[in-house]
Amino acid sequence: MFSHIKDLQYNAKPSQPDPVYAKKLQEILGGQFGEISVMMQYLFQGWNCRGNSKYRDMLLDIGTEEIAHVEMIATMIAQLLEGAPAHDQDQAAQDPVVEAVLGGMNPQHAVVNGLGAQPNDSAGYPWNARYTIASGNLLADFRANLNAESQGRLQAVRLYEMTTDPGVRDMLSFLIARDKMHQNQWMAAIEELEQMEGAVVPNTFSPDHERQDVAYTFMNFSEGEESSQGRWAQGSSMDGKGTFSYVQNPDAVGQKPELAPAPAFIHGTLPFTPSKDDDPQL
Amino acid sequence: MFSHIKDLQYNAKPSQPDPVYAKKLQEILGGQFGEISVMMQYLFQGWNCRGNSKYRDMLLDIGTEEIAHVEMIATMIAQLLEGAPAHDQDQAAQDPVVEAVLGGMNPQHAVVNGLGAQPNDSAGYPWNARYTIASGNLLADFRANLNAESQGRLQAVRLYEMTTDPGVRDMLSFLIARDKMHQNQWMAAIEELEQMEGAVVPNTFSPDHERQDVAYTFMNFSEGEESSQGRWAQGSSMDGKGTFSYVQNPDAVGQKPELAPAPAFIHGTLPFTPSKDDDPQL
Amino acid sequence: MFSHIKDLQYNAKPSQPDPVYAKKLQEILGGQFGEISVMMQYLFQGWNCRGNSKYRDMLLDIGTEEIAHVEMIATMIAQLLEGAPAHDQDQAAQDPVVEAVLGGMNPQHAVVNGLGAQPNDSAGYPWNARYTIASGNLLADFRANLNAESQGRLQAVRLYEMTTDPGVRDMLSFLIARDKMHQNQWMAAIEELEQMEGAVVPNTFSPDHERQDVAYTFMNFSEGEESSQGRWAQGSSMDGKGTFSYVQNPDAVGQKPELAPAPAFIHGTLPFTPSKDDDPQL
Amino acid sequence: MFSHIKDLQYNAKPSQPDPVYAKKLQEILGGQFGEISVMMQYLFQGWNCRGNSKYRDMLLDIGTEEIAHVEMIATMIAQLLEGAPAHDQDQAAQDPVVEAVLGGMNPQHAVVNGLGAQPNDSAGYPWNARYTIASGNLLADFRANLNAESQGRLQAVRLYEMTTDPGVRDMLSFLIARDKMHQNQWMAAIEELEQMEGAVVPNTFSPDHERQDVAYTFMNFSEGEESSQGRWAQGSSMDGKGTFSYVQNPDAVGQKPELAPAPAFIHGTLPFTPSKDDDPQL
Amino acid sequence: MFSHIKDLQYNAKPSQPDPVYAKKLQEILGGQFGEISVMMQYLFQGWNCRGNSKYRDMLLDIGTEEIAHVEMIATMIAQLLEGAPAHDQDQAAQDPVVEAVLGGMNPQHAVVNGLGAQPNDSAGYPWNARYTIASGNLLADFRANLNAESQGRLQAVRLYEMTTDPGVRDMLSFLIARDKMHQNQWMAAIEELEQMEGAVVPNTFSPDHERQDVAYTFMNFSEGEESSQGRWAQGSSMDGKGTFSYVQNPDAVGQKPELAPAPAFIHGTLPFTPSKDDDPQL
Amino acid sequence: MFSHIKDLQYNAKPSQPDPVYAKKLQEILGGQFGEISVMMQYLFQGWNCRGNSKYRDMLLDIGTEEIAHVEMIATMIAQLLEGAPAHDQDQAAQDPVVEAVLGGMNPQHAVVNGLGAQPNDSAGYPWNARYTIASGNLLADFRANLNAESQGRLQAVRLYEMTTDPGVRDMLSFLIARDKMHQNQWMAAIEELEQMEGAVVPNTFSPDHERQDVAYTFMNFSEGEESSQGRWAQGSSMDGKGTFSYVQNPDAVGQKPELAPAPAFIHGTLPFTPSKDDDPQL
Repeated sequence: MFSHIKDLQYNAKPSQPDPVYAKKLQEILGGQFGEISVMMQYLFQGWNCRGNSKYRDMLLDIGTEEIAHVEMIATMIAQLLEGAPAHDQDQAAQDPVVEAVLGGMNPQHAVVNGLGAQPNDSAGYPWNARYTIASGNLLADFRANLNAESQGRLQAVRLYEMTTDPGVRDMLSFLIARDKMHQNQWMAAIEELEQMEGAVVPNTFSPDHERQDVAYTFMNFSEGEESSQGRWAQGSSMDGKGTFSYVQNPDAVGQKPELAPAPAFIHGTLPFTPSKDDDPQL
Repeated sequence: MFSHIKDLQYNAKPSQPDPVYAKKLQEILGGQFGEISVMMQYLFQGWNCRGNSKYRDMLLDIGTEEIAHVEMIATMIAQLLEGAPAHDQDQAAQDPVVEAVLGGMNPQHAVVNGLGAQPNDSAGYPWNARYTIASGNLLADFRANLNAESQGRLQAVRLYEMTTDPGVRDMLSFLIARDKMHQNQWMAAIEELEQMEGAVVPNTFSPDHERQDVAYTFMNFSEGEESSQGRWAQGSSMDGKGTFSYVQNPDAVGQKPELAPAPAFIHGTLPFTPSKDDDPQL
Repeated sequence: MFSHIKDLQYNAKPSQPDPVYAKKLQEILGGQFGEISVMMQYLFQGWNCRGNSKYRDMLLDIGTEEIAHVEMIATMIAQLLEGAPAHDQDQAAQDPVVEAVLGGMNPQHAVVNGLGAQPNDSAGYPWNARYTIASGNLLADFRANLNAESQGRLQAVRLYEMTTDPGVRDMLSFLIARDKMHQNQWMAAIEELEQMEGAVVPNTFSPDHERQDVAYTFMNFSEGEESSQGRWAQGSSMDGKGTFSYVQNPDAVGQKPELAPAPAFIHGTLPFTPSKDDDPQL
Repeated sequence: MFSHIKDLQYNAKPSQPDPVYAKKLQEILGGQFGEISVMMQYLFQGWNCRGNSKYRDMLLDIGTEEIAHVEMIATMIAQLLEGAPAHDQDQAAQDPVVEAVLGGMNPQHAVVNGLGAQPNDSAGYPWNARYTIASGNLLADFRANLNAESQGRLQAVRLYEMTTDPGVRDMLSFLIARDKMHQNQWMAAIEELEQMEGAVVPNTFSPDHERQDVAYTFMNFSEGEESSQGRWAQGSSMDGKGTFSYVQNPDAVGQKPELAPAPAFIHGTLPFTPSKDDDPQL
Repeated sequence: MFSHIKDLQYNAKPSQPDPVYAKKLQEILGGQFGEISVMMQYLFQGWNCRGNSKYRDMLLDIGTEEIAHVEMIATMIAQLLEGAPAHDQDQAAQDPVVEAVLGGMNPQHAVVNGLGAQPNDSAGYPWNARYTIASGNLLADFRANLNAESQGRLQAVRLYEMTTDPGVRDMLSFLIARDKMHQNQWMAAIEELEQMEGAVVPNTFSPDHERQDVAYTFMNFSEGEESSQGRWAQGSSMDGKGTFSYVQNPDAVGQKPELAPAPAFIHGTLPFTPSKDDDPQL
Repeated sequence: MFSHIKDLQYNAKPSQPDPVYAKKLQEILGGQFGEISVMMQYLFQGWNCRGNSKYRDMLLDIGTEEIAHVEMIATMIAQLLEGAPAHDQDQAAQDPVVEAVLGGMNPQHAVVNGLGAQPNDSAGYPWNARYTIASGNLLADFRANLNAESQGRLQAVRLYEMTTDPGVRDMLSFLIARDKMHQNQWMAAIEELEQMEGAVVPNTFSPDHERQDVAYTFMNFSEGEESSQGRWAQGSSMDGKGTFSYVQNPDAVGQKPELAPAPAFIHGTLPFTPSKDDDPQL
C-alpha cells in the first residue's frame, strides 16, 4: 500500500514558461528511459520478486522514489506550459517568438491536455508497457536497470544543456545526481550477484547443453579486422571460464534451407516443376 | 553493403513439426529481446558510431551475425509450422492432439502468414523500433547490449526447457552459446570504456552542476529496512568518488505545487473562490 | 512524494495456482480499464489540477489507492502462475489438464516474466498511455473517471464469474466494492460540478458561436424510426436550455467537395480533361 | 448496409489554406476523441447490441452521422493543406511565413499523403481500435459516450480558439453544436437506464458478494484532508443504497506478500539462505 | 453524408456458435487486410481525391460497400460468441470441448466486449490507421488496393477452409466473390491509368534526375544465381523504356562512412586517439 | 548467413547539415514504405518461401540490397544532424535560422539518439512489424512489393523536391532509380505468375464455392453514377472469366440482425419488454 506526501521530493519550478522546452522535457517523463519506465520497472520487479527480501525491499524503495520523480517532472511541465499562446497563424508570422512557439510546441499539450503534462515522450508517442523489464532473474534485471539509469541520465544531461532556465536546471541537477546514485546502486547490486552466481545470465544452465566451441569466439562478419583489437578478441573471458578467440572467416555450417510445400488448405504458391526452376542443370 | 550466403550459420531443423511451440519460439525472433532487436540495435549503433573504428567494426560484425540468427529462427519456425491442422472445431473435440494445437497455436501463422514465420513475439505483438537503443554514448549502449544478451539468453534457456525436440535443442544450444559469448563481449567492452572514462554515464558532465548531497545516498521510501543491508548502502561508491550512505526517512524538500489557472482559451475548470474550497480556515 | 507500506491493502491470495486464469486477470491490471489506467489517470489529473485543492487532494487520494490495487493484482497473478507446467507437447497430449494450461496460458508469463505479472492486458497487449485521460477540464475528466470505474467494475464482475477460487473471489469482492464506491464518488463530484457550471462541457463557450438550430436535434440517419421513442427525441434537453426535436430525414447542407489539383512537387495523379471524365455531358 | 450522399452534411471550406492548422485539426479527426473514434464506437455498440431495438437504432443513427463528420473534417484538412510550400531550408530562413509552415506542419501530410488528410491525431500518432469502447452493457457504454462527447467538444472549442479563419470556424460551430446535442442525448439515455437499472454498473451483481464495509467509504491516502469537504465524503450515496463515510487513516489489512521460489526450469534468481538476507535477526 | 439500411448486404448467420472460430474470424474484420482497412482506405482515398470525379465516385462506392462488410462480419462474430462458456478451470479439465473453447477463445471477447465483436485482429491486436494507404497518387494507391484485395481474399479462403459451418461458409462465399470482383476492378483501373501515365510511379519525375545506369539492372547480392533465370533479368523492361540486365557481382561505389565527432553538448563517446584505435598502422 | 562490406552501395554525403530535413528523410528509412519495411518484407518472404528456388534467391538478393539502402540513409541522416544547435529558446528568438531548426527538428534526434538516425518515420513513430507482408502466396506478396516500391519511390521523389542539397539529391537519384528497377522487377515477376496461375489470388479456390452472381458486378453505393464510366463497369473482366456489370441500386439481401440476449454471467444490458421498445406496433 502507498501514501502520498504533498510536498515534492525536490524543487520543480521553472523561472519562466517555455512550452517548446516542455515538449522536449516529456522525454524523461514518458519516454523509453523516462521516470514512468523506471517507476514501473522497479515496482514490477519488486512485486514479482521471489524470496530475497533485501532485494524486494530495495526495489520497492527505489520504485516508490521514482513515483515522486514522475510527479516532479509532471509539475514542471504543467508550469512550463503556462505561457502557451493561442494566437493564430497570421499573427505568428508577425512575431518570431510566437511563431517559434507555435511551430515547436506539441499541439496536444493545448488541445488534449489543457496545458498539462502527458505520459508521452518528446515525439508525442505514448509510454507503453513494453518498456517495463521484469524477468524474474535479478542479475538480468539489474543490468536492465543499470542501462535505464545510464540512458536516463544521459538524456537528462542533454536536456540540461538545452536550457538556461535556472529553475529547470535546479531540478535537473537533483535528478542527474539521483541517476548517478542509481547507477552506483545497480553496479553494487550486480557485483554482489555476480560474486554469488557468476557473470553469465542465467548461471543455472548446464554448459553441457551449449556448443562450447562457439561460446568464447568472436566472429568477424565484416570486411576489415579492426574488431580484432578489442579485449573481447583475446585473453581470458570475463566469466573466467574460457579464452577469447578471433575467427577471421567464420563458416556457415547449417543446412541450405528447403521448406516443404504448404498443404492445399493454405493456398500458397505451388512449387513449379524442378526442371523449370529448381534445378538449372536440368 | 551486405551479401548473403545460402547456408545457415548453424543447423535449424526440428525433428518434427510443433505449431504450438512455433508460437512460443517467436519470442526470441520478434520479441523485445529477440534477434531482430539485437540485429537492429547493433547495426544502428554501428552506423551512428562517430570515430572509434574498432567499435564501429565490432558492432557491424555482431550486427551482421544477428541477421543470420534471425534467418535461422525464421527457418526453424517455418518448419515447425508444417504440421498445422486445418480441422474444424467438431473434429478437434474428438482428438486431444488436434485440439491442443488449435487452442494453442497462433491463428495468424495460418491465416496471415501461410505457415511462415512472422516478425512478432510470442503474444503475436509486432516487433517495433522502440526496442532499438542507440544513444551515441557507447558505454550506455554497451550496457543496453549486455542487458539484451542477458534477457535474450534467459529466454532461450527457458525455451530450451520447454521442448524435448533434439533438432530445436541443437539450434538453441548454438544460440545460447553465442549469447554467452556476447555477454562476455559486452562485459569486456564495458570494462575497456569504464577504465578510460569512468563508471558513470555520461562522464563528461561536471559534478559542479549536480546536487552532490544526494549523489551517493540510498533513500528508504518504504516501511522496513531490509534494504540497508546491501552493498549500495555502505562503503565507497562503485565509481570510487563517494561513499554510500543510507537515509532512513528522506525529507521532501520541494514546494507544495500550486499551478496558475489556465487562460480562458483553454476552457479548463475555473478555480473556485478560496473561501469555498482552497482554504478551509475561511 | 510517496511512501510504501509492506502489507497489501487487502488479501490477495489464491487458493491454488491457475495460470490460465492468470492470463485473464491481466485485463484488470494492464487493460484499458485496468488498475494501471486509473492509477495513471487520477495521478495525472491531480498533478495537472489548477486551483481547487479539494479536487486535487481527492484525485491524489484515489490515485494513490490505485497504486495499491495494481500491487494487489500483480501479487495475485504471480501466485496464480506458480503451477505453470514446463511439459512438452507430447506429454500434453496425454494429459488434458496440462494441455488446457499449455494451450490457454500466455507464453510470455513463463518465457519473458519468469512467472511474474506483466503490465499488459488479457490479450498480451501492453498498457499504453493513450488510456490516460487528463484534459484540464474536471467535469469532462470526472465523466471519463465514471466510465472507467463502470467498465472496470463490469470486467471485475465478469472475472468473478469465471473462477470459483475462494481466494481470488475474496480479492475481487474487495475491488468490486471499491469500484462501487468510486462510481458513487465520481457521480457525487459530477453533480457538484454540474450544479456550479452547467451540464455541457465546456460551459464557457458562447452559444453565439455555435449553430443553435442543430444543438438539440436528433437526426435519423438510418432506416426505421425506433430511435424516435427515446427521451433524447422529445421534451426539454438535459441541460435545461433547449427542447429536443427529431428530424426524420436530415438534409445535407454542405458543399459537394471539389479539391484543387495538387502542386507539381507532390507528383499526385493529374486531373484528366473534363471532356473525358469529369463531365459526362461533354 | 450503407449508402453515400455526395453533399457534405455541413459546410467544410476554409477561407484560406493553413497547413500548420491542418496538423492541429487532425486531433478531432483521428485522435482518441476524434470523429473516427465516435464513429467506430457507436457503430460497434449498435452492431453488438442484444435486444432493445430502440437503442440499437439510435446507436446506428448517430454512428452513421459520425461517418459524415469524418468526411467533413477530412475534406477540410485536404483544403487547408493546399498552401503547403515545397521550399527548401535556405529559402525558409529568409521568409518567416514559409519558415513557420515548414517548422510546424506535419511532414507526412506532404511526403506520405500528398496533401491529403490522414487518420492520425495532431501528434501524427495513428488512430487505433483500443479507442473503441463496446462492452455489451449499455449504461457503461453510454457513460463512455458522454465522456467522448465531452472531451471531443472541449477539443473542438480549443481548436476554434486557435484559428480566426471564418470557414473553419463555421464548420466547427456546427460540430460543437452537434457535440452539445450528443452530450444531451447520452445524458437522456443514461437517465432512462439508471431509472430502470440503478446507478451502479453492473446492477446485476449481488451485494452479498462484495465487501459492503468498503463500498461507500472514501479513503484518505494522502497528507491533508481537503478531500473530506466533498459531497463524496458525507451524506447518502448517489445510488441511494448507502451512506458515504471518510476514513482518515485507512489500514492495510492484506498479507505481506511472500512468493514461492520459481521452479528450476524458469532459471530465476534463487532465494539466498535466510541467515544472510531474509532475516536480519539471524 | 451517409445513411444506413437495416438489412445486411448479405446473410451473416452461423449454423451454431463457435467462440474459437470467432477469434480467428476477427482477422478479416480488424486485421491489416480486414474490412476495416479497406473501408478506411477507400474512403480516405475518395475524400482526398483531387479532380477525376470518376475515380472519386468509384472509391466512395466501394468504400461505402466495405462499411457493410464490416457490419456483416461484426454481426457474424457476435453470433458465433453466443456459446461461450463461463465454466472454471476445474470443470474444463473434465470436458474436452469446454477446455478447447477456454484455451482457444480470446478472453477479451467475454471480459471486455461482453460477447461482441471487437475491431481487432485474430491475435487481439487493435486495428490501427497505419494500415490506411492514401498517397494522392492513384496509380500507387490502386496497387495498394489490389494488394489489399489479394491478401484479403487469401485470408478469407483460408478461413473458409478452417470451418465446416454452412452459415459461415455462405457468408464467406459472398465476401470471396466480392474480393474477386474487387481484384478485377483494381486491375481494370490500373490498366487505365498505366495506359495514360506509364507504368512507373510517379511518372512525372524526370529521368534526367535519376541514375539511369542502375534503373534497369538486377543486382545479385547473394550466393548462387538462380535469380538470373527470371524475366526481370533479361529482355525489355516492363515500362518499355529500358532493357533488363543482370549484374553478378555488384560493386559498392559509395564512401566508407566517417562521421564527425558529436559536439560536446551531446555527451557521446569521444573519439580515441588515432594511434590507439583508428589506424592500426600507427 | 550474411557478410558486410565497409563501403556504402552508393554515395551518401550531404553538402551541408540540415537537421530539419533529417527529420523528413526518416520517412524513407523507418516509415511504412521505408527501406526497413522492404528489407524485412523481402527477407521474410525469402525465408518463408516454399519451393521455387528462383524466387527465393531473387527475394534474398533484393532483401540483402535493401539492408544496404537502410545503411545509406542512416548514414546520410547522421551527417545531416551534425549542425543541430543546442541553443536555448531566448537565443532562438533572435535568429530565424536557429529558430526554424529548433521548431522543426525532431527533439529525439538530439536527446535520445545523440545526433544519430533512428528506425522511425518522419512523425517520430517507430517502425513496426505489421508493415511486413509475407503471406506464403507469391502473387499476393509480389503485389504488396509492387505497391511498396510505388509508394516508396513516390515518397523519395517528394523528398527530392524538398531539398536543393546536391549530395542528398545525388543519393536520392540512385534510390529513385533502384525503385524504378524494383517496380519493373515486380511487374515482371507478377506477369510470370499470372500467366502460370491466373490473375485472381488465390487461384486454387473453386469458383463453385463462391457466389458467382456477384463476382463481376460493380455496385453503386453512392449518389451519382460517374463510376459507371470506368473499365470496371463494362466489358470482359480482367481475369478473362467473366463480364463486368454495373448495378445501379444494389439490394440488401441479408437478414435484419437480431442477437440473442447475453447469458447472465456477462452482466450486459437486459432486453426490455417488447411492448415497451422492441415492437412499436404494440
